[in-house]
Amino acid sequence: MKITRVSLIVLFMVISCNAIFAQNEKSFPDALTVIYNRRSVRHFTGEKVSQDDLIAIAKAAMAAPTAVNMQPWSFIIVTDRGGLDALAKVLPYAKMLDKAGAAIIVCAIPEKALQGKTEFAIIDSTCAGENILLAAEALGLGAVWTGVYPDKNRMDFVRKQLNIPESVIPLNVIPIGYPTSEDKPKDKFKRENMHWERW
Amino acid sequence: MKITRVSLIVLFMVISCNAIFAQNEKSFPDALTVIYNRRSVRHFTGEKVSQDDLIAIAKAAMAAPTAVNMQPWSFIIVTDRGGLDALAKVLPYAKMLDKAGAAIIVCAIPEKALQGKTEFAIIDSTCAGENILLAAEALGLGAVWTGVYPDKNRMDFVRKQLNIPESVIPLNVIPIGYPTSEDKPKDKFKRENMHWERW
Repeated sequence: MKITRVSLIVLFMVISCNAIFAQNEKSFPDALTVIYNRRSVRHFTGEKVSQDDLIAIAKAAMAAPTAVNMQPWSFIIVTDRGGLDALAKVLPYAKMLDKAGAAIIVCAIPEKALQGKTEFAIIDSTCAGENILLAAEALGLGAVWTGVYPDKNRMDFVRKQLNIPESVIPLNVIPIGYPTSEDKPKDKFKRENMHWERW
Repeated sequence: MKITRVSLIVLFMVISCNAIFAQNEKSFPDALTVIYNRRSVRHFTGEKVSQDDLIAIAKAAMAAPTAVNMQPWSFIIVTDRGGLDALAKVLPYAKMLDKAGAAIIVCAIPEKALQGKTEFAIIDSTCAGENILLAAEALGLGAVWTGVYPDKNRMDFVRKQLNIPESVIPLNVIPIGYPTSEDKPKDKFKRENMHWERW
């Protein structure tokens, strides 16, 4: 039962490689874990968000399905401190922008949607918005959907502030940043919300 | 530089454990990969979907954010062959139900939504719908959003077929099943759909 020094070194190297591998894996958690554990993050550290991460998040947004593949959307990415503060100042539920690293505004474009319908533009853009929230969580960031549509005053303000055309609907403002540990996921699973075969 | 038989056996065991570990990891792909590679699956093998998987998917649906945590939704899960065929027969874009293992119908409930507004019920339920599509993909299944809302005829038919109250909006019918290899993800990333700082 002799174990040589060399074989111990080899064993140690294998285990180390694994630890590194496992760590890399951990930085990209699996999809169901991310979906289940996504939180609305309203407390940020103030750290900036990298452009690479913002592009990865925008890519996730554009991977959402759209009715007849019309992609009736655009995404405004605000990183400038003055721009974030100007939004925070007026939007009542987006005050946490003061510590966010960025914000994405999902814009729905009815004239590009199937049959030119607002409903399809909203649904397609909402799927993109959910992907933004999940992608942020997956990257170790946090985000929260703060509503703009259907509030007319908020839509008018966001349009004016960000130079958005009148025919385009600013759906939300999503602050994104590095989370403090304050926000936790909610357990919303309810068996009574599942109906088997019929209502 | 002697390596003993015992140390070789230990090394082999470590590598084997890893291979098993890596395989388990592989069955739960990371969130960004799932978001980027999710496809609308319209071709199914006909295999049934387990109740565990359907509950895992419903759990993903209910993990979506809702305005002021109102959770204005319900989910009808159809697995019965007769029920699936009855939907396929009438819904023009849901013919693939004939080979799907199940379907989930996302129901939006305006009276439970923030301010009783249909817009919030639709947005919240749409986030749940996107989570269903992603969770199916994550589990190695496939799914596709077939629209019901805002088409009045389709809504009336689905309500009647599934015993859904008049005040509830059937948003979609999502066939779920084991995909053949026919459906591929679309690359919809467009730089011109990103605006930095303002439109």
